Amino acid sequence: MNAFPSQVKMVEVGPRDGLQNEPGRVKTATKIEFIHQLSGTGLPVIEATSFVSPRWVPQLADAEAVYTGLQRQPGVRYPALVPNRAGLERALAAGVADIAVFTGVTDTFCQKNIHCSVAESLERYQPVITEARERQLGVRAYLSCVLGCPYEGAVSTRQVARLARQLAELGADEISLGDTIGVGTPLQAQRMLATVAEQVPLERLAVHFHDTYGQALANIFACLELGIAVIDSAVAGLGGCPYAKGATGNVATEEVIYMLQGMGIETGVDLERLIGVGRHICQALGRENQSRVGRAGLGRLKQVV
Amino acid sequence: MNAFPSQVKMVEVGPRDGLQNEPGRVKTATKIEFIHQLSGTGLPVIEATSFVSPRWVPQLADAEAVYTGLQRQPGVRYPALVPNRAGLERALAAGVADIAVFTGVTDTFCQKNIHCSVAESLERYQPVITEARERQLGVRAYLSCVLGCPYEGAVSTRQVARLARQLAELGADEISLGDTIGVGTPLQAQRMLATVAEQVPLERLAVHFHDTYGQALANIFACLELGIAVIDSAVAGLGGCPYAKGATGNVATEEVIYMLQGMGIETGVDLERLIGVGRHICQALGRENQSRVGRAGLGRLKQVV
Repeated sequence: MNAFPSQVKMVEVGPRDGLQNEPGRVKTATKIEFIHQLSGTGLPVIEATSFVSPRWVPQLADAEAVYTGLQRQPGVRYPALVPNRAGLERALAAGVADIAVFTGVTDTFCQKNIHCSVAESLERYQPVITEARERQLGVRAYLSCVLGCPYEGAVSTRQVARLARQLAELGADEISLGDTIGVGTPLQAQRMLATVAEQVPLERLAVHFHDTYGQALANIFACLELGIAVIDSAVAGLGGCPYAKGATGNVATEEVIYMLQGMGIETGVDLERLIGVGRHICQALGRENQSRVGRAGLGRLKQVV
Repeated sequence: MNAFPSQVKMVEVGPRDGLQNEPGRVKTATKIEFIHQLSGTGLPVIEATSFVSPRWVPQLADAEAVYTGLQRQPGVRYPALVPNRAGLERALAAGVADIAVFTGVTDTFCQKNIHCSVAESLERYQPVITEARERQLGVRAYLSCVLGCPYEGAVSTRQVARLARQLAELGADEISLGDTIGVGTPLQAQRMLATVAEQVPLERLAVHFHDTYGQALANIFACLELGIAVIDSAVAGLGGCPYAKGATGNVATEEVIYMLQGMGIETGVDLERLIGVGRHICQALGRENQSRVGRAGLGRLKQVV
């Protein structure tokens, strides 16, 4: 019955979803160096920054400087989040080739995070996605709170599936389903994914888990059983959401790669190098490494697995 | 294909596997209070202590004082580890009703931990188990390093199954399969469990995962798919093994209960109360809480899940 993929595309969200939540201002040079280091690990997609208004997320005020300062590696994609038309213009000017838009399943979450209702967010993104596609950009859409909302509580899986379909119809190539507050458990994750996959082909879906309750990796395993082949994560478990109550870090990329390696699923990522990058950014930020693999290291393991 | 159990028996190993690894000496009164608090959460089995020689594990020199100081709750079992005949006599004198013995899959691991080969450990346990059963005690056997050994590397799953069968034939009611160094991933865990279950009925097996590489909960989910219904864990992720290199804490009981609740599997454990016990023991030990559920708490969640 299981439909494990032979290969998984990892989407590294550390530089954007991770760093936007850091309390202090991270230096532009640190961000660029971080992305350069990630580029050397074999990761195929690194979300680099967000062209959101500095009024809302001052941590990302240097989006242009980060993006134009990047030496992009061939074969690696560097999407950037854009919140609206103005963000798209900034992204285009900076030479972005892939964008991402961000909405949520509930009106309260959207109001608190993007200052409009869910329906209004779709209206707002329609011309953004249309223009992006006319210009041959890749378009990803984040759908947040797919397994629960910090304000409205339980969410309807049918509503999640309906919104995912609407985002696909607007022209998003890929829909990332986010358990933003990390409340889901494996069978809930499977049921949600199966319901969404009735509306949007599984090949166009990604999963995005936060590890608030330690469930992220079990949820990812459960989704792999259904064949999911795109997984979001952040090295060292960086991240969170600046407005979402209690949204702690993303699942650590190291843990996901470790599990996939053990399952014989290819990612193209050099885990040892990735662990080094995670340790380096934690040191630079003065932050505890949230990855258990990152903390333990692989040294002793070589003869075991 | 999945055979999820409707109910799981949780075996709390925090007071023994957890505290034996604490660097400082924990007060006897603290241990007793900890076990009393755990007894009030609905946990059915709490491994209380070990009658190992104080020469080997000085942290457990107060085993008699702990055990005889307990006010045992009706309906809760309080097994104690016994390493040999002398340990059994001490345990019997203290009024123990359930014992556990401990061996491993590789000779090097056994030599470093229990100072004999695997075969010698089985010979040593034979009279212990026989006597324990004659006296109507429950007998559990721990089998360590089932997914890898810190000294010998990869282990043979057939060897794991053979040893589990031998332990069952010696008279152990329950065999706890331990990934002592936390190296396994979900499909490896499933394959191992399936192979062992060909030799010993699944109802007599338990799984015991450490979270060194963050894989424990995913591994448990994978084993639940095969129907495993006994799970070892330690509140607040306490634990480790005093001699095993890099053996960090057990999977946190809070994370397991959270997942099982989300899957609709009964444990009888009051998660909110358990979180309180985990926070209390961490405070008493001056130790960081390793449970993400314990750190996050359930406060905000009530309306979500």
